[in-house]
Amino acid sequence: MPDARTQVMRAAPPGAPVVGVVGAGQLARMLCEAASALDIGVVVLAERADDAAAPVAPGLVVGSPSDPAAMRALAGMVDVVTFDHEQVDLGILAELAAEGAVVRPGLETLQMAVDKSVMRARLAAAGLPVPPYESLHPAVSSDPAAATAAIASFADRHGWPVVVKAARGGYDGKGVWPVPDVDATRRLCETTARAGTPLLVEAFVPIEAELAVVVARRPGGDVVAWPPVETAQVDGVCREVLFPGRLDPAVAGRAAALGRAVAEVAGSVGVLAVELFLAGGALLVNEVAARPHNSAHWTIEGSITSQFENHLRGVLDLPLGSTAPAAAEVASVNVFGAPPEVPPSGGPRGPDATLPRALAVEGAHVHLYGKTPRPGRKLGHVTVCGSDAGEVRARAWAAARALGTPLPASLDVELAR
Amino acid sequence: MPDARTQVMRAAPPGAPVVGVVGAGQLARMLCEAASALDIGVVVLAERADDAAAPVAPGLVVGSPSDPAAMRALAGMVDVVTFDHEQVDLGILAELAAEGAVVRPGLETLQMAVDKSVMRARLAAAGLPVPPYESLHPAVSSDPAAATAAIASFADRHGWPVVVKAARGGYDGKGVWPVPDVDATRRLCETTARAGTPLLVEAFVPIEAELAVVVARRPGGDVVAWPPVETAQVDGVCREVLFPGRLDPAVAGRAAALGRAVAEVAGSVGVLAVELFLAGGALLVNEVAARPHNSAHWTIEGSITSQFENHLRGVLDLPLGSTAPAAAEVASVNVFGAPPEVPPSGGPRGPDATLPRALAVEGAHVHLYGKTPRPGRKLGHVTVCGSDAGEVRARAWAAARALGTPLPASLDVELAR
Repeated sequence: MPDARTQVMRAAPPGAPVVGVVGAGQLARMLCEAASALDIGVVVLAERADDAAAPVAPGLVVGSPSDPAAMRALAGMVDVVTFDHEQVDLGILAELAAEGAVVRPGLETLQMAVDKSVMRARLAAAGLPVPPYESLHPAVSSDPAAATAAIASFADRHGWPVVVKAARGGYDGKGVWPVPDVDATRRLCETTARAGTPLLVEAFVPIEAELAVVVARRPGGDVVAWPPVETAQVDGVCREVLFPGRLDPAVAGRAAALGRAVAEVAGSVGVLAVELFLAGGALLVNEVAARPHNSAHWTIEGSITSQFENHLRGVLDLPLGSTAPAAAEVASVNVFGAPPEVPPSGGPRGPDATLPRALAVEGAHVHLYGKTPRPGRKLGHVTVCGSDAGEVRARAWAAARALGTPLPASLDVELAR
Repeated sequence: MPDARTQVMRAAPPGAPVVGVVGAGQLARMLCEAASALDIGVVVLAERADDAAAPVAPGLVVGSPSDPAAMRALAGMVDVVTFDHEQVDLGILAELAAEGAVVRPGLETLQMAVDKSVMRARLAAAGLPVPPYESLHPAVSSDPAAATAAIASFADRHGWPVVVKAARGGYDGKGVWPVPDVDATRRLCETTARAGTPLLVEAFVPIEAELAVVVARRPGGDVVAWPPVETAQVDGVCREVLFPGRLDPAVAGRAAALGRAVAEVAGSVGVLAVELFLAGGALLVNEVAARPHNSAHWTIEGSITSQFENHLRGVLDLPLGSTAPAAAEVASVNVFGAPPEVPPSGGPRGPDATLPRALAVEGAHVHLYGKTPRPGRKLGHVTVCGSDAGEVRARAWAAARALGTPLPASLDVELAR
């Protein structure tokens, strides 16, 4: 019996292969852009009819990914189901798969992507480097005193501060809590226990650099990887991605191999993003996302094949495209809504009103996701390709700032053009 | 009173600027792909609900461009009206403009694009080089004997053969008739007079090469141009586009200047394509199209800014993007439906069934327009960028052939990889 809130608004045209995307944010939107060129149909499952991908998707179902009827409606309209985000119910997906739906990436991969404890355990078991960590038993996570004791015991062995994480549901810095001592831990655990948040605790890693490696795989195991990039996060949110960045080539080579190894362990299909820490000269796996990822938006212009096209190719079991770079230096900077006290100079309408100033920046590839501006909301990104690292970065920031993006004080961006 | 056949299927979301496109073919489809990235809304006016751009356009009106109600419905939903093709009624457009609609390119430019006699007359008056030609008076075009006499008189001065053209309605080689003598002329004129086709006649030009220059302009007159390309037509239909091609750099420089001069005379806004003949070392303007054009599909991957993005920027009066090439050598080959006696080896379904073989070609950017395959129908194109002219051309043809495109015997394509 379909949920009354689920509405099939339109189907993709018949004939071509059709990919169903759970979620209709900017990743789904950019998948639609890539799909159009290859005549691949897309049906998105949007929570709201004004989600980013809704206007440009050939097919549209409005409903919740936690509603089995909505998920079943989507699966019934497409050749393969894939994902814009990890806020999915694996039980529903298992039911759909049992009913014959093709779900890519598959359940095993998604388990790793939705649950950091599963991810850490599988990578550690495979001998891949992760920060020292401990997953708290659910019975411990739900008891503030027991959780505090477990975390304090971990800190006794690894030192304060430690980083407490929600095993599920975190993204963009949400669900990640550095804690300096037992008191702060106790206060945090009272909140997380009340919310029923499953926890893990990790040693604090003194980070020298953050890297990302994005890998695309086909069901048969064919694999390609884009070259590693340097990323900069502020408060856990990605602000810029630099190819090749300031990475030592030897480190980049080890990062690429590690990314492929993680994808192999995950058994991924389509795109898988691996976020890495460089600490004390060693690489550690921080996060894994089994979908297109912010750290590879630069591939739209900066590589022969974009992550979005290769995600579609991968989940449809088509030959994967070249991941070679198309330029020597690429910078991609995220566009955020300005805080109210810093209105964009072009007026109150957000990126649209300031678009002319951004487009006037030489070589700026502007991507806006069609989202209503709010302070701190990710609204788009700007990519610049070229031959000079400082210049592409300065231009990308100039365009992002023209669109209202605040410049974080912690990034040493050279703004002169 | 709206025509009963006109149906507003959906509107573009509010907030962003919205471009209305008359026509919903592959040009409109590729405009939609570029518009999504910039959060520019698009509403297409499609003759049929399964036209190429219909599934990917945020807004969709189904109706005829010759129906004032359909055109008015489109104009009422958008900030600016632009075009996918020239099969438009200038009278309706003049009415819409008088009612306040913003139509770009404007009526003056469109007159040139829809009527070769107007185009030739304006360019000749501006001192720009065109083949020797004569426009037949409508009273002459409609009288087979008078038309034959006028054409024979022209041939007395310029020699046989001559090229007779329909002043309006021709495209892709349709409406272009080389005639060797008076008898053939008489037979042709009986047909064209019956059809009411307005005619012009041109001297036959012994072509050494065909070139195209594509120019983008803003309403204020700001102008950018992509570098000239070499094109190859077979039976009047474009089969491949090569940047920079085998053009002498001095010729390319003169072609670029001529393209800009034509755009200036046309007073164009958005993209304008100028097709040129190289004959006896001289450049002559062959055709002018006031819209994105097949000869610049290579700009999607081969240039910093694609023709589709700059068309949108131009008609919205936004700063134009860089037209610098992104690779040293670019080849773009059109994909056509195979004749029934040469079925594509992948099976009977057309490009979709043969897509895997095309995607397996290194560096092949495949674009399919979502059109039902028919022999000789243009279904897509493939672009390859690189550093070796022979290699990019061979790869583009390899992918196009994998998709079922017959290789014309007249093109000396080196197929070895």
